[in-house]
Amino acid sequence: MTRVAVIGAAYTKFDEHWEKSLRDLSTEAGALALRDAKIEGSDIQALYIGNMSAGSFTGQEHLAALAVDEAGLTPIPATRCEAACASGALAFRNAYIAILSGEYDIVVAAGAEKMTDLKGTDAIATLMGAGDQEWESSIGLTFVGLYALLARAHMHRFGTTSEQLAMVSVNNHKNATLNELAQFPAEVTVEQVLKSPLIADPLRLLDCSPITDGAAALVLVSEEVARRFENPVWILGCGQASDALALDNRKSLVEMNATKVAARQAYGQAGLEPKDIDIAEVHDCFSINEILAVEDLGFCEKGKGGKFVEEGKIARDGEKPINTTGGLKAIGHPVGATGIRQIADLVMQLRGNYGKLQINGVKRGLALNIGGSGATAITTILGKEPKPTTY
Amino acid sequence: MTRVAVIGAAYTKFDEHWEKSLRDLSTEAGALALRDAKIEGSDIQALYIGNMSAGSFTGQEHLAALAVDEAGLTPIPATRCEAACASGALAFRNAYIAILSGEYDIVVAAGAEKMTDLKGTDAIATLMGAGDQEWESSIGLTFVGLYALLARAHMHRFGTTSEQLAMVSVNNHKNATLNELAQFPAEVTVEQVLKSPLIADPLRLLDCSPITDGAAALVLVSEEVARRFENPVWILGCGQASDALALDNRKSLVEMNATKVAARQAYGQAGLEPKDIDIAEVHDCFSINEILAVEDLGFCEKGKGGKFVEEGKIARDGEKPINTTGGLKAIGHPVGATGIRQIADLVMQLRGNYGKLQINGVKRGLALNIGGSGATAITTILGKEPKPTTY
Repeated sequence: MTRVAVIGAAYTKFDEHWEKSLRDLSTEAGALALRDAKIEGSDIQALYIGNMSAGSFTGQEHLAALAVDEAGLTPIPATRCEAACASGALAFRNAYIAILSGEYDIVVAAGAEKMTDLKGTDAIATLMGAGDQEWESSIGLTFVGLYALLARAHMHRFGTTSEQLAMVSVNNHKNATLNELAQFPAEVTVEQVLKSPLIADPLRLLDCSPITDGAAALVLVSEEVARRFENPVWILGCGQASDALALDNRKSLVEMNATKVAARQAYGQAGLEPKDIDIAEVHDCFSINEILAVEDLGFCEKGKGGKFVEEGKIARDGEKPINTTGGLKAIGHPVGATGIRQIADLVMQLRGNYGKLQINGVKRGLALNIGGSGATAITTILGKEPKPTTY
Repeated sequence: MTRVAVIGAAYTKFDEHWEKSLRDLSTEAGALALRDAKIEGSDIQALYIGNMSAGSFTGQEHLAALAVDEAGLTPIPATRCEAACASGALAFRNAYIAILSGEYDIVVAAGAEKMTDLKGTDAIATLMGAGDQEWESSIGLTFVGLYALLARAHMHRFGTTSEQLAMVSVNNHKNATLNELAQFPAEVTVEQVLKSPLIADPLRLLDCSPITDGAAALVLVSEEVARRFENPVWILGCGQASDALALDNRKSLVEMNATKVAARQAYGQAGLEPKDIDIAEVHDCFSINEILAVEDLGFCEKGKGGKFVEEGKIARDGEKPINTTGGLKAIGHPVGATGIRQIADLVMQLRGNYGKLQINGVKRGLALNIGGSGATAITTILGKEPKPTTY
């Protein structure tokens, strides 16, 4: 079986792009990734794109064909993947599998979401499509409401505090000040988070990731092709798991089982343990989710995530730097693009020349992309060096 | 590389199911396919599901997680694929690729669409998400309008007649009278088609496939697993291609280039030619599309599709039986389910025990699933016998 590497990575400015459409953003990200990889469009054999709700946000389904068409890449095959906010990593994982299958050698995995649009859809209602329409949306739950329930359960069980939740946002906003592509590259203080408007108790405005337009793209290649390029970054493992869509059908509200299963797969494939991971991009759609992530990925014991954050271990100069470029909270969260953006940031860190964003000595990074309130989790481990061949 | 077979196939009654939700339909189809395969849910390692617009139709995205959850299959990975009306075959193709990759041995590929829903979305507007939102929908084009333009171009260039278009519907409705799962299992005459209300000149009501609820599912397995089951049906080839999303950006309006490219791939992989195909399921969303399909798949010369239909070659007892169980026109067209339903029908024909629907002596079948007005085409060739190993 071939090994697979990433040779191109890019994302657009994450922002409210009132002057750009979904096709503009996806084409821009794709072009940037090809330029980064130093390849031509004609080299691309297939495209996978993650997108959650273009149909509801903009009236446009069939997004993969649109992306290939707009980029002048017809007639290559084009696949849209959707798993709510994990759509990006889902596109990445299927592109990875397509190369493993031997069907292709050079594939683009992209992600895009246009959440502000003249169609003027209610973004909050559209995003609830990620939850359970029959058992959650229909009774009025919002997404921040779902995560508020998770936060409350974690506080009740482990004594996690609002201050610890706030420190997640503080960390990520601080990191974003270094990132020119971030939507909100401004520092916030714990006090500011705690005084921001309450959205769904205990989560406040500054615990929540924003509504964002943006796109991201990666170029994945087989080992044979990768050897012709400088500084490829290798995929060491990629796991995916599912859980009950509705919270009330979960075995536990203080952990995400899908994350644990997906992480176990990825660690197993990579032959690594949590301690071997140098940096991670985790899915901080709401601050509580970063605390759940550091626990469920095994970076600290279950229940100790709040403390882990409070002790500064997630800081850029901490023991386990997390969301070193700003996370969903401060870079922004164009839902279908996020999973690709996370991996793009890891790729750039692993190359070792990420300018002022660079964390030194990074050899292995992990990305965790979550769909909905945890019904989908995809965990990807990347490395500077390929994993040893097993045959 | 492993070879891949289908060991389970089923679809629900295609109908207006006001009493069943999307989750009911997908679970029903999945359960039927597992029973058909004689395997248990716990044998399934991954699920792919095709769906076009659950977000717009029902407010539910994240459909793959829902399907796995409802079926009690968590934590297996679940992927939703979307390419408008080709979403079903797209799910199938990615499930196939996932087995080729060695990642899984037993995968369910499903498709589902709930087009009638209490949410009461305008189905016509939602379906235009398959076209180009910026260049087609926004100026008021409907899907039947797009296909009317294709029909008019074909008539103008090749002299194709309204009677020939009508004969497509007559054939497919006649075939559906044998199919208990069809939405409209009633014969129609050429005269009835020609007197039915004009929807978009030259296409009339009875040239158009209906709005339908339904789901379909297949169980795909690696060669090693297939050998343990009776009567597996083998995947001989599966091609996929893209074309411009908007009609005005196509090189030709009288052919679908994506079909031609996807068919060439599938024939090449299978080592077969059009003459080797015994029966075909083609995408007759509108009657003109079946005429384009028989030409672009190479069953007859370009421009002779109307004549091919008129001469009865597509009949169940004809030279090349097409849509032998009723097609989209008469079985119904729950868009995300159709591509899977087509393959399910081929599987049952190839097994040789399809009751009154059986066409005798069928060894190889082809399915063509089209997305939008031809921006995506996926062509699958199945056989009673596997293709010879190439190594």
